[in-house]
Amino acid sequence: MNICTYSYEEYLHLVKSFHGTLAPGLLIGGFIVDLAMKNLPEGELFDAVCETPVCLPDAVQILTPCTIGNGWLSIINFGRFAVTLYEKYSGKGVRVYLDTKKLEKWPEVRDWYLKKKKKNEQDSDLLMAQIKEAGHTLLSVQKVQVEPEKVRRKKMGPVGICPVCGEAYPSKHGEKCLNCQGETPYSEVTKVKTTK
Amino acid sequence: MNICTYSYEEYLHLVKSFHGTLAPGLLIGGFIVDLAMKNLPEGELFDAVCETPVCLPDAVQILTPCTIGNGWLSIINFGRFAVTLYEKYSGKGVRVYLDTKKLEKWPEVRDWYLKKKKKNEQDSDLLMAQIKEAGHTLLSVQKVQVEPEKVRRKKMGPVGICPVCGEAYPSKHGEKCLNCQGETPYSEVTKVKTTK
Repeated sequence: MNICTYSYEEYLHLVKSFHGTLAPGLLIGGFIVDLAMKNLPEGELFDAVCETPVCLPDAVQILTPCTIGNGWLSIINFGRFAVTLYEKYSGKGVRVYLDTKKLEKWPEVRDWYLKKKKKNEQDSDLLMAQIKEAGHTLLSVQKVQVEPEKVRRKKMGPVGICPVCGEAYPSKHGEKCLNCQGETPYSEVTKVKTTK
Repeated sequence: MNICTYSYEEYLHLVKSFHGTLAPGLLIGGFIVDLAMKNLPEGELFDAVCETPVCLPDAVQILTPCTIGNGWLSIINFGRFAVTLYEKYSGKGVRVYLDTKKLEKWPEVRDWYLKKKKKNEQDSDLLMAQIKEAGHTLLSVQKVQVEPEKVRRKKMGPVGICPVCGEAYPSKHGEKCLNCQGETPYSEVTKVKTTK
Protein backbone atom coordinates (compact mmCIF):
# COMPACT_ATOMS: atom_id res chain seq x y z
CA MET A 1 0.00 0.00 0.00
CA ASN A 2 1.52 3.25 -1.13
CA ILE A 3 0.64 6.91 -0.73
CA CYS A 4 1.59 8.39 -4.09
CA THR A 5 5.30 7.62 -4.55
CA TYR A 6 5.86 6.85 -0.86
CA SER A 7 5.38 3.76 1.25
CA TYR A 8 2.83 4.24 4.03
CA GLU A 9 5.65 4.39 6.59
CA GLU A 10 7.55 6.99 4.57
CA TYR A 11 4.40 9.06 4.35
CA LEU A 12 3.92 8.87 8.15
CA HIS A 13 7.47 10.13 8.53
CA LEU A 14 6.79 13.10 6.20
CA VAL A 15 3.59 13.90 8.07
CA LYS A 16 5.41 13.91 11.41
CA SER A 17 8.15 16.12 10.04
CA PHE A 18 5.94 18.67 8.27
CA HIS A 19 2.71 18.68 10.26
CA GLY A 20 4.16 17.87 13.69
CA THR A 21 1.77 15.09 14.68
CA LEU A 22 0.26 11.99 13.11
CA ALA A 23 -3.17 13.59 12.89
CA PRO A 24 -5.91 11.17 11.73
CA GLY A 25 -7.10 13.74 9.18
CA LEU A 26 -3.71 13.84 7.55
CA LEU A 27 -3.55 10.05 7.27
CA ILE A 28 -6.93 9.95 5.56
CA GLY A 29 -5.75 12.98 3.58
CA GLY A 30 -2.89 10.91 2.22
CA PHE A 31 -5.35 8.37 0.83
CA ILE A 32 -7.54 11.17 -0.56
CA VAL A 33 -4.67 12.80 -2.46
CA ASP A 34 -3.40 9.41 -3.62
CA LEU A 35 -6.81 8.45 -5.00
CA ALA A 36 -7.20 11.85 -6.69
CA MET A 37 -3.79 11.48 -8.35
CA LYS A 38 -4.82 8.04 -9.65
CA ASN A 39 -7.98 9.53 -11.23
CA LEU A 40 -6.58 12.69 -12.80
CA PRO A 41 -8.25 13.84 -15.99
CA GLU A 42 -5.98 14.44 -18.96
CA GLY A 43 -3.68 17.41 -18.76
CA GLU A 44 -0.32 18.51 -17.52
CA LEU A 45 -0.77 21.23 -14.93
CA PHE A 46 -3.07 20.65 -12.00
CA ASP A 47 -4.17 23.01 -9.26
CA ALA A 48 -5.73 21.87 -6.00
CA VAL A 49 -8.76 22.88 -3.98
CA CYS A 50 -9.10 21.83 -0.38
CA GLU A 51 -12.56 22.28 1.15
CA THR A 52 -11.34 22.67 4.72
CA PRO A 53 -8.34 24.42 6.29
CA VAL A 54 -8.07 21.65 8.90
CA CYS A 55 -5.24 19.13 8.36
CA LEU A 56 -6.05 18.27 4.76
CA PRO A 57 -4.10 21.14 3.10
CA ASP A 58 -0.91 19.68 4.53
CA ALA A 59 -1.52 16.34 2.77
CA VAL A 60 -1.80 18.28 -0.49
CA GLN A 61 1.35 20.28 0.26
CA ILE A 62 3.35 17.17 1.16
CA LEU A 63 2.24 15.07 -1.81
CA THR A 64 1.74 17.49 -4.72
CA PRO A 65 3.55 20.55 -6.11
CA CYS A 66 0.62 22.71 -4.89
CA THR A 67 1.27 24.90 -1.84
CA ILE A 68 -0.54 27.81 -0.25
CA GLY A 69 2.37 30.14 -1.03
CA ASN A 70 2.70 29.29 -4.71
CA GLY A 71 -1.03 29.73 -5.21
CA TRP A 72 -1.65 26.33 -6.78
CA LEU A 73 -3.52 25.24 -3.64
CA SER A 74 -6.72 27.10 -2.77
CA ILE A 75 -8.57 26.57 0.48
CA ILE A 76 -12.31 27.15 0.63
CA ASN A 77 -13.83 26.96 4.04
CA PHE A 78 -16.81 24.63 3.50
CA GLY A 79 -15.67 22.30 6.28
CA ARG A 80 -16.10 19.30 3.95
CA PHE A 81 -13.30 16.75 3.97
CA ALA A 82 -12.52 16.82 0.26
CA VAL A 83 -9.73 17.58 -2.18
CA THR A 84 -10.17 18.46 -5.84
CA LEU A 85 -7.36 18.40 -8.38
CA TYR A 86 -8.22 20.18 -11.63
CA GLU A 87 -6.50 20.98 -14.89
CA LYS A 88 -5.71 24.64 -14.50
CA TYR A 89 -6.90 25.85 -17.89
CA SER A 90 -9.93 23.65 -18.63
CA GLY A 91 -11.12 23.34 -15.02
CA LYS A 92 -11.77 19.62 -15.52
CA GLY A 93 -11.13 17.92 -12.24
CA VAL A 94 -11.48 15.01 -9.88
CA ARG A 95 -12.90 15.42 -6.39
CA VAL A 96 -12.26 12.86 -3.67
CA TYR A 97 -14.11 13.01 -0.37
CA LEU A 98 -14.58 11.10 2.83
CA ASP A 99 -17.93 9.39 2.26
CA THR A 100 -20.15 9.28 5.34
CA LYS A 101 -22.01 6.30 3.82
CA LYS A 102 -18.82 4.24 3.97
CA LEU A 103 -18.09 4.80 7.65
CA GLU A 104 -20.30 2.10 9.17
CA LYS A 105 -17.65 -0.61 8.87
CA TRP A 106 -15.15 1.58 10.71
CA PRO A 107 -16.80 2.74 13.94
CA GLU A 108 -13.72 4.37 15.43
CA VAL A 109 -13.21 6.44 12.28
CA ARG A 110 -16.91 7.32 12.22
CA ASP A 111 -16.95 8.43 15.86
CA TRP A 112 -13.84 10.55 15.34
CA TYR A 113 -15.04 12.12 12.10
CA LEU A 114 -18.57 12.88 13.23
CA LYS A 115 -17.27 13.97 16.65
CA LYS A 116 -19.33 11.39 18.49
CA LYS A 117 -16.56 10.90 21.04
CA LYS A 118 -14.50 13.39 22.98
CA LYS A 119 -10.77 13.30 22.33
CA ASN A 120 -10.03 11.54 25.63
CA GLU A 121 -12.59 8.81 24.86
CA GLN A 122 -11.01 7.95 21.50
CA ASP A 123 -8.82 4.88 21.11
CA SER A 124 -6.02 6.44 19.12
CA ASP A 125 -4.30 3.16 18.19
CA LEU A 126 -7.55 1.62 17.00
CA LEU A 127 -8.38 4.77 15.03
CA MET A 128 -4.99 4.71 13.29
CA ALA A 129 -5.31 0.99 12.58
CA GLN A 130 -8.81 1.39 11.10
CA ILE A 131 -7.67 4.28 8.90
CA LYS A 132 -4.76 2.25 7.58
CA GLU A 133 -6.89 -0.82 6.96
CA ALA A 134 -9.78 1.07 5.42
CA GLY A 135 -7.57 3.17 3.13
CA HIS A 136 -9.37 4.13 -0.08
CA THR A 137 -12.56 2.29 0.91
CA LEU A 138 -13.60 5.30 3.05
CA LEU A 139 -13.60 7.52 -0.01
CA SER A 140 -15.70 8.32 -3.04
CA VAL A 141 -14.73 10.01 -6.30
CA GLN A 142 -16.53 12.58 -8.42
CA LYS A 143 -15.73 14.18 -11.74
CA VAL A 144 -16.16 17.92 -11.41
CA GLN A 145 -16.01 20.99 -13.57
CA VAL A 146 -14.28 23.72 -11.56
CA GLU A 147 -14.75 27.41 -12.24
CA PRO A 148 -11.14 28.40 -11.54
CA GLU A 149 -11.84 32.12 -11.07
CA LYS A 150 -14.04 31.24 -8.08
CA VAL A 151 -11.22 29.58 -6.18
CA ARG A 152 -7.98 31.04 -7.45
CA ARG A 153 -6.02 33.70 -5.59
CA LYS A 154 -6.73 37.17 -6.96
CA LYS A 155 -3.87 39.16 -8.49
CA MET A 156 -2.38 41.77 -6.16
CA GLY A 157 -2.48 44.53 -8.78
CA PRO A 158 -0.63 47.86 -8.46
CA VAL A 159 1.29 48.55 -5.26
CA GLY A 160 1.15 51.72 -3.19
CA ILE A 161 2.86 52.92 -0.01
CA CYS A 162 0.51 53.22 2.95
CA PRO A 163 0.64 56.83 4.27
CA VAL A 164 0.17 55.58 7.84
CA CYS A 165 2.56 52.63 8.29
CA GLY A 166 4.83 53.36 5.31
CA GLU A 167 4.64 49.78 4.07
CA ALA A 168 3.82 48.58 0.55
CA TYR A 169 0.23 47.32 0.05
CA PRO A 170 -2.21 46.62 -2.80
CA SER A 171 -3.60 50.00 -3.96
CA LYS A 172 -6.95 48.35 -4.62
CA HIS A 173 -7.48 48.14 -0.84
CA GLY A 174 -8.01 51.92 -0.68
CA GLU A 175 -6.08 54.96 0.55
CA LYS A 176 -4.57 53.10 3.47
CA CYS A 177 -3.62 49.46 3.94
CA LEU A 178 -6.23 47.22 5.58
CA ASN A 179 -4.21 47.06 8.80
CA CYS A 180 -4.28 50.86 9.11
CA GLN A 181 -7.97 50.92 8.17
CA GLY A 182 -8.53 49.22 11.51
CA GLU A 183 -8.60 45.50 10.77
CA THR A 184 -5.35 45.04 12.68
CA PRO A 185 -4.81 42.02 14.95
CA TYR A 186 -2.11 44.00 16.80
CA SER A 187 -3.08 45.98 19.90
CA GLU A 188 0.45 47.33 20.36
CA VAL A 189 3.35 47.89 17.96
CA THR A 190 6.81 49.13 18.97
CA LYS A 191 9.76 49.56 16.65
CA VAL A 192 12.87 47.65 17.66
CA LYS A 193 16.34 49.04 17.03
CA THR A 194 18.44 46.36 15.39
CA THR A 195 22.22 46.43 15.47
CA LYS A 196 22.59 45.37 11.88
CA MET B 1 25.13 33.47 6.27
CA ASN B 2 22.50 31.04 7.41
CA ILE B 3 18.73 30.84 7.14
CA CYS B 4 17.70 29.42 10.51
CA THR B 5 19.53 26.09 10.79
CA TYR B 6 20.29 25.86 7.06
CA SER B 7 23.05 27.27 4.88
CA TYR B 8 21.74 29.67 2.22
CA GLU B 9 22.30 27.00 -0.44
CA GLU B 10 20.46 24.37 1.57
CA TYR B 11 17.56 26.80 1.97
CA LEU B 12 17.46 27.41 -1.81
CA HIS B 13 17.25 23.66 -2.28
CA LEU B 14 14.31 23.39 0.14
CA VAL B 15 12.54 26.28 -1.58
CA LYS B 16 12.93 24.65 -4.97
CA SER B 17 11.65 21.35 -3.65
CA PHE B 18 8.63 22.69 -1.72
CA HIS B 19 7.63 25.84 -3.60
CA GLY B 20 8.70 24.77 -7.10
CA THR B 21 10.65 27.88 -8.09
CA LEU B 22 13.24 30.18 -6.52
CA ALA B 23 10.74 33.00 -6.13
CA PRO B 24 12.32 36.27 -4.93
CA GLY B 25 9.63 36.61 -2.27
CA LEU B 26 10.55 33.29 -0.78
CA LEU B 27 14.23 34.19 -0.59
CA ILE B 28 13.44 37.43 1.24
CA GLY B 29 10.94 35.38 3.25
CA GLY B 30 13.80 33.18 4.43
CA PHE B 31 15.58 36.22 5.86
CA ILE B 32 12.32 37.48 7.39
CA VAL B 33 11.64 34.22 9.23
CA ASP B 34 15.30 33.93 10.24
CA LEU B 35 15.31 37.44 11.74
CA ALA B 36 12.01 36.79 13.52
CA MET B 37 13.40 33.58 15.04
CA LYS B 38 16.44 35.52 16.30
CA ASN B 39 14.17 38.06 18.02
CA LEU B 40 11.61 35.78 19.62
CA PRO B 41 10.14 36.94 22.92
CA GLU B 42 10.34 34.53 25.82
CA GLY B 43 8.12 31.49 25.60
CA GLU B 44 7.98 27.99 24.28
CA LEU B 45 5.17 27.72 21.77
CA PHE B 46 4.95 30.17 18.92
CA ASP B 47 2.28 30.64 16.31
CA ALA B 48 2.81 32.55 13.07
CA VAL B 49 0.89 35.21 11.19
CA CYS B 50 1.66 35.93 7.58
CA GLU B 51 0.18 39.16 6.20
CA THR B 52 0.02 37.99 2.60
CA PRO B 53 -0.85 34.65 0.96
CA VAL B 54 1.78 35.25 -1.73
CA CYS B 55 5.01 33.24 -1.37
CA LEU B 56 5.74 34.17 2.24
CA PRO B 57 3.60 31.44 3.90
CA ASP B 58 5.87 28.84 2.30
CA ALA B 59 8.96 30.34 3.99
CA VAL B 60 7.14 29.95 7.31
CA GLN B 61 6.09 26.38 6.51
CA ILE B 62 9.60 25.38 5.43
CA LEU B 63 11.40 26.96 8.39
CA THR B 64 9.06 26.66 11.37
CA PRO B 65 6.69 24.01 12.79
CA CYS B 66 3.76 26.24 11.74
CA THR B 67 1.72 25.08 8.72
CA ILE B 68 -1.64 26.04 7.29
CA GLY B 69 -3.00 22.56 8.02
CA ASN B 70 -1.96 22.39 11.66
CA GLY B 71 -3.42 25.82 12.32
CA TRP B 72 -0.29 27.34 13.82
CA LEU B 73 0.11 29.52 10.72
CA SER B 74 -2.61 32.09 10.03
CA ILE B 75 -2.77 34.10 6.84
CA ILE B 76 -4.38 37.52 6.86
CA ASN B 77 -4.76 39.13 3.49
CA PHE B 78 -3.36 42.63 4.08
CA GLY B 79 -0.91 42.30 1.19
CA ARG B 80 1.92 43.50 3.46
CA PHE B 81 5.16 41.54 3.26
CA ALA B 82 5.47 40.67 6.93
CA VAL B 83 5.63 37.70 9.28
CA THR B 84 4.79 37.76 12.99
CA LEU B 85 5.74 35.01 15.41
CA TYR B 86 3.92 35.23 18.72
CA GLU B 87 3.77 33.29 21.96
CA LYS B 88 0.50 31.48 21.64
CA TYR B 89 -0.89 32.19 25.10
CA SER B 90 0.38 35.69 25.90
CA GLY B 91 0.20 37.02 22.32
CA LYS B 92 3.59 38.70 22.75
CA GLY B 93 5.29 38.67 19.40
CA VAL B 94 7.89 39.89 16.98
CA ARG B 95 6.94 41.23 13.55
CA VAL B 96 9.48 41.42 10.74
CA TYR B 97 8.69 43.25 7.50
CA LEU B 98 10.27 44.35 4.28
CA ASP B 99 10.97 48.03 4.95
CA THR B 100 10.31 50.28 1.93
CA LYS B 101 12.70 52.86 3.43
CA LYS B 102 15.58 50.41 3.12
CA LEU B 103 15.11 49.65 -0.57
CA GLU B 104 17.01 52.58 -2.09
CA LYS B 105 20.37 50.82 -1.99
CA TRP B 106 18.92 47.84 -3.84
CA PRO B 107 17.21 49.19 -6.98
CA GLU B 108 16.46 45.81 -8.53
CA VAL B 109 14.74 44.64 -5.35
CA ARG B 110 12.84 47.94 -5.12
CA ASP B 111 11.64 47.75 -8.72
CA TRP B 112 10.53 44.15 -8.27
CA TYR B 113 8.80 44.75 -4.93
CA LEU B 114 7.02 47.97 -5.91
CA LYS B 115 6.21 46.51 -9.35
CA LYS B 116 8.03 49.28 -11.18
CA LYS B 117 9.21 46.83 -13.84
CA LYS B 118 7.33 44.20 -15.79
CA LYS B 119 8.51 40.64 -15.30
CA ASN B 120 10.29 40.51 -18.69
CA GLU B 121 12.19 43.73 -17.86
CA GLN B 122 13.59 42.35 -14.61
CA ASP B 123 17.16 41.14 -14.38
CA SER B 124 16.56 37.94 -12.45
CA ASP B 125 20.22 37.21 -11.67
CA LEU B 126 20.81 40.74 -10.40
CA LEU B 127 17.62 40.55 -8.33
CA MET B 128 18.72 37.28 -6.71
CA ALA B 129 22.23 38.65 -6.10
CA GLN B 130 20.89 41.83 -4.48
CA ILE B 131 18.52 39.86 -2.24
CA LYS B 132 21.35 37.62 -1.09
CA GLU B 133 23.73 40.52 -0.48
CA ALA B 134 21.12 42.71 1.22
CA GLY B 135 19.84 39.92 3.49
CA HIS B 136 18.52 41.26 6.80
CA THR B 137 19.33 44.88 5.88
CA LEU B 138 16.08 45.08 3.87
CA LEU B 139 14.07 44.36 6.99
CA SER B 140 12.83 46.04 10.13
CA VAL B 141 11.61 44.54 13.37
CA GLN B 142 8.71 45.45 15.65
CA LYS B 143 7.54 44.14 18.96
CA VAL B 144 3.82 43.49 18.76
CA GLN B 145 1.00 42.42 21.00
CA VAL B 146 -1.19 40.04 19.00
CA GLU B 147 -4.84 39.42 19.79
CA PRO B 148 -4.81 35.70 18.98
CA GLU B 149 -8.57 35.33 18.64
CA LYS B 150 -8.46 37.77 15.71
CA VAL B 151 -6.13 35.59 13.67
CA ARG B 152 -6.58 32.05 14.86
CA ARG B 153 -8.66 29.48 13.00
CA LYS B 154 -12.11 29.13 14.48
CA LYS B 155 -13.15 25.76 15.95
CA MET B 156 -15.30 23.67 13.66
CA GLY B 157 -17.89 22.90 16.35
CA PRO B 158 -20.56 20.17 16.07
CA VAL B 159 -20.80 18.22 12.83
CA GLY B 160 -23.95 17.51 10.84
CA ILE B 161 -24.74 15.63 7.65
CA CYS B 162 -25.81 17.88 4.78
CA PRO B 163 -29.27 16.75 3.56
CA VAL B 164 -28.34 17.67 -0.03
CA CYS B 165 -24.85 16.23 -0.64
CA GLY B 166 -24.80 13.78 2.27
CA GLU B 167 -21.36 14.92 3.42
CA ALA B 168 -20.31 15.98 6.91
CA TYR B 169 -20.11 19.75 7.51
CA PRO B 170 -20.03 22.20 10.44
CA SER B 171 -23.61 22.53 11.74
CA LYS B 172 -22.97 26.20 12.49
CA HIS B 173 -23.07 26.88 8.72
CA GLY B 174 -26.84 26.31 8.69
CA GLU B 175 -29.25 23.62 7.50
CA LYS B 176 -27.14 22.78 4.45
CA CYS B 177 -23.41 22.94 3.84
CA LEU B 178 -22.07 26.12 2.24
CA ASN B 179 -21.47 24.32 -1.06
CA CYS B 180 -25.13 23.30 -1.25
CA GLN B 181 -26.21 26.80 -0.16
CA GLY B 182 -24.88 27.92 -3.54
CA GLU B 183 -21.31 29.03 -2.91
CA THR B 184 -20.01 26.10 -4.95
CA PRO B 185 -17.06 26.50 -7.32
CA TYR B 186 -18.26 23.41 -9.22
CA SER B 187 -20.54 23.86 -12.23
CA GLU B 188 -20.85 20.09 -12.78
CA VAL B 189 -20.49 17.10 -10.48
CA THR B 190 -20.72 13.46 -11.60
CA LYS B 191 -20.21 10.45 -9.38
CA VAL B 192 -17.53 8.04 -10.55
CA LYS B 193 -17.85 4.30 -9.98
CA THR B 194 -14.62 3.00 -8.52
CA THR B 195 -13.60 -0.61 -8.77
CA LYS B 196 -12.37 -0.78 -5.22
